[in-house]
Amino acid sequence: MVDAEIIAVGSELLTPQRTDTNSLYLTDQLNGLGVEVRRKTIVGDDRARLTITVREALVHADIVILTGGLGPTEDDVTRDAVAAALGRQLVFRQDICDGIEERFRVRSRKMAEINRRQAFVVEGAEVLDNSAGTAPGLWIEHDSKVIILLPGPPPELKPMFETECVSRLKQRLPDVIIRSRFYRVTGMTESDLDMLIAPVYKKYDNPATTVLASAGDIQVHLRARCETVEEAERLLAEVGDPIEELLGAMLYSRNGDSHERVIGNLLHEREATVAVAESLTGGMLGQRITAISGSSDNFAGGFLVYTNALKQKLLGVDGDLIREYTVVSKEVAVAMAEGARQRTGATYAISTTGEAGPSSSSGAVVGTVFIGFAAEGHSEAQRFVMPGDRSRVRGFTTNAALDLLRRRLLGLD
Amino acid sequence: MVDAEIIAVGSELLTPQRTDTNSLYLTDQLNGLGVEVRRKTIVGDDRARLTITVREALVHADIVILTGGLGPTEDDVTRDAVAAALGRQLVFRQDICDGIEERFRVRSRKMAEINRRQAFVVEGAEVLDNSAGTAPGLWIEHDSKVIILLPGPPPELKPMFETECVSRLKQRLPDVIIRSRFYRVTGMTESDLDMLIAPVYKKYDNPATTVLASAGDIQVHLRARCETVEEAERLLAEVGDPIEELLGAMLYSRNGDSHERVIGNLLHEREATVAVAESLTGGMLGQRITAISGSSDNFAGGFLVYTNALKQKLLGVDGDLIREYTVVSKEVAVAMAEGARQRTGATYAISTTGEAGPSSSSGAVVGTVFIGFAAEGHSEAQRFVMPGDRSRVRGFTTNAALDLLRRRLLGLD
Repeated sequence: MVDAEIIAVGSELLTPQRTDTNSLYLTDQLNGLGVEVRRKTIVGDDRARLTITVREALVHADIVILTGGLGPTEDDVTRDAVAAALGRQLVFRQDICDGIEERFRVRSRKMAEINRRQAFVVEGAEVLDNSAGTAPGLWIEHDSKVIILLPGPPPELKPMFETECVSRLKQRLPDVIIRSRFYRVTGMTESDLDMLIAPVYKKYDNPATTVLASAGDIQVHLRARCETVEEAERLLAEVGDPIEELLGAMLYSRNGDSHERVIGNLLHEREATVAVAESLTGGMLGQRITAISGSSDNFAGGFLVYTNALKQKLLGVDGDLIREYTVVSKEVAVAMAEGARQRTGATYAISTTGEAGPSSSSGAVVGTVFIGFAAEGHSEAQRFVMPGDRSRVRGFTTNAALDLLRRRLLGLD
Repeated sequence: MVDAEIIAVGSELLTPQRTDTNSLYLTDQLNGLGVEVRRKTIVGDDRARLTITVREALVHADIVILTGGLGPTEDDVTRDAVAAALGRQLVFRQDICDGIEERFRVRSRKMAEINRRQAFVVEGAEVLDNSAGTAPGLWIEHDSKVIILLPGPPPELKPMFETECVSRLKQRLPDVIIRSRFYRVTGMTESDLDMLIAPVYKKYDNPATTVLASAGDIQVHLRARCETVEEAERLLAEVGDPIEELLGAMLYSRNGDSHERVIGNLLHEREATVAVAESLTGGMLGQRITAISGSSDNFAGGFLVYTNALKQKLLGVDGDLIREYTVVSKEVAVAMAEGARQRTGATYAISTTGEAGPSSSSGAVVGTVFIGFAAEGHSEAQRFVMPGDRSRVRGFTTNAALDLLRRRLLGLD
């Protein structure tokens, strides 16, 4: 097993507002090459502390990747710190300087003197071409280890890693095949899901299984590392097939697609449309459905009806129904869905009504939600009590509404 | 200056899907106490590597905070690793064990044998009470340094830090006053903003200024560290007042409030309501406005009108107008806003129509957006060309629509 450490450089990454995310991309790429990330470090623009951090990483890891700190200013200390950590010199490379100058020239601008700093490289390093910016990357081999310096901006880092680093890394790595499955699940809690499937996956180190949850949406990743594709696929089936069986209709995606994309595809296949009538979600449901490009073919439109008066006026909900059952009720949820469907001419409609909190105006317990559904000749509503604060109640409700639509599209219970 | 390092423990934090965020909260808290975070490290559930990481941190930092790895399973290695790094023993504490057992008992459950692990503490440590879970935290003083062990789940970590750690830290720290300003700005790019205000703030190390941008929303933080409140406020005024002057109407918040909260407050003060008519934003605008609790008083409702037919049917947009000017036009944006206002009886209405991409169906260039506004006796629309992909175009449009509404509420140009 080959180990990597990632060091993100930049004082802005040590503020309360921002954190390193390049390492998520790099981890995904490295895992795909069979490399495990063992440690990630975030350091400021501090030459001394970065030098120490690089030295410490080189003790433990086979591959050390640094991101950021390759710009032209005094604050950009990565080149210096790496040279110091390795006990090498920085050398000026006229060809790199010419390249940077040319980059400015084609934009009819003059290179600032300060950019000459970017033409210094660690002695013995290979230069990694930057197709999207001025800072070249560096590839350094040292005592059987590899140190890679990448620019911080993701639009520069990603193409550089893919075009310059992947093939170089592959040459140094043992042949390992990585295959994965990426499930997405809704309608259960993370702990219930884990109780259900842990007896299957806990027996296996390979494939490695990770579970990740947000409000009403759980991701399950299986990743097998093997010498052959056949072996990897066999292991994935051995663990994944029983998991799929256990999850049943709760499993909405087998390839990592979002709920809205799965629904978009189902609507496309059926040449069907959906309309929404949103009370407590206030647009969240429409926003999710329309986040998918091409949704204009399937989204028939929607109504954001916060008030009782608008539920009556825009959707034709009967005022007596609201007075008799209250606005947070099965009856009103159904009437909202039916009204939205009728007024838009959509094949299907879904509705949300409930108490998102923090306080209740309808008398219903905070978190109480009804989700309505209407189709030709059929309408219904389901009741939920969602946990958490206003934002989580709205998030859970949106996921549950998408789930009800998906189940009806698939003819599931 | 007192330095801290934060070590987040957990193999799930080394996957491509998840990263440590507790450190953002802790950094904010530590900065407020006058402590600078110099390095953050993320390590898996790996006793050996964590032990080394703790040792390395202790060389450089005055305060080392570890988060996570305090649970009851074999994977929870933080206690062990810290004991090993400090050369101390783990000792069993019957009183902690009794407390955990009691926690289970009041929930009518029996403590699992495995939970006894959580009653082991590093020799000489003070125990930090956990009001929200079973894992106690630990406070360890060692060679004039402090090592703090906190549980990983934020609902346990945050109250423990605030009730158990802040006062202990204050006793050890020099008296420093921290005062800050938190501006939020819209309607300009990050680089334009920085060109404008950098000449003011670059001259000062204190207050420290950080700038953070997302699609159409920029945050500017000033943080002054001084011996007296008066000195801190004087410095903040010296840097902040000219910045406020330069930003003018672009500055929508002086206290970090979100755009939707600022607008909610303005509508409340005026006892006014707003309605939305959304095409390309598909619900994003309504969702933002209704994310604020209490928005039911000010949100008159909305229309998600993706298709030309619905723009005509639900909002009364004239079909001839669409044919003459196309659906992505000033005229249609105005008609949408007027229709939404008239049909909901709202004081104001805002509308969005445009091409979010990836391809254009209206003939307009991708990114072209019109935002409409309607009030009593006045309506208008503004044209924008938004950069980026579908998701960024929608985000920029939502921020620009909120901004137009805010300016009209304030009578700004």
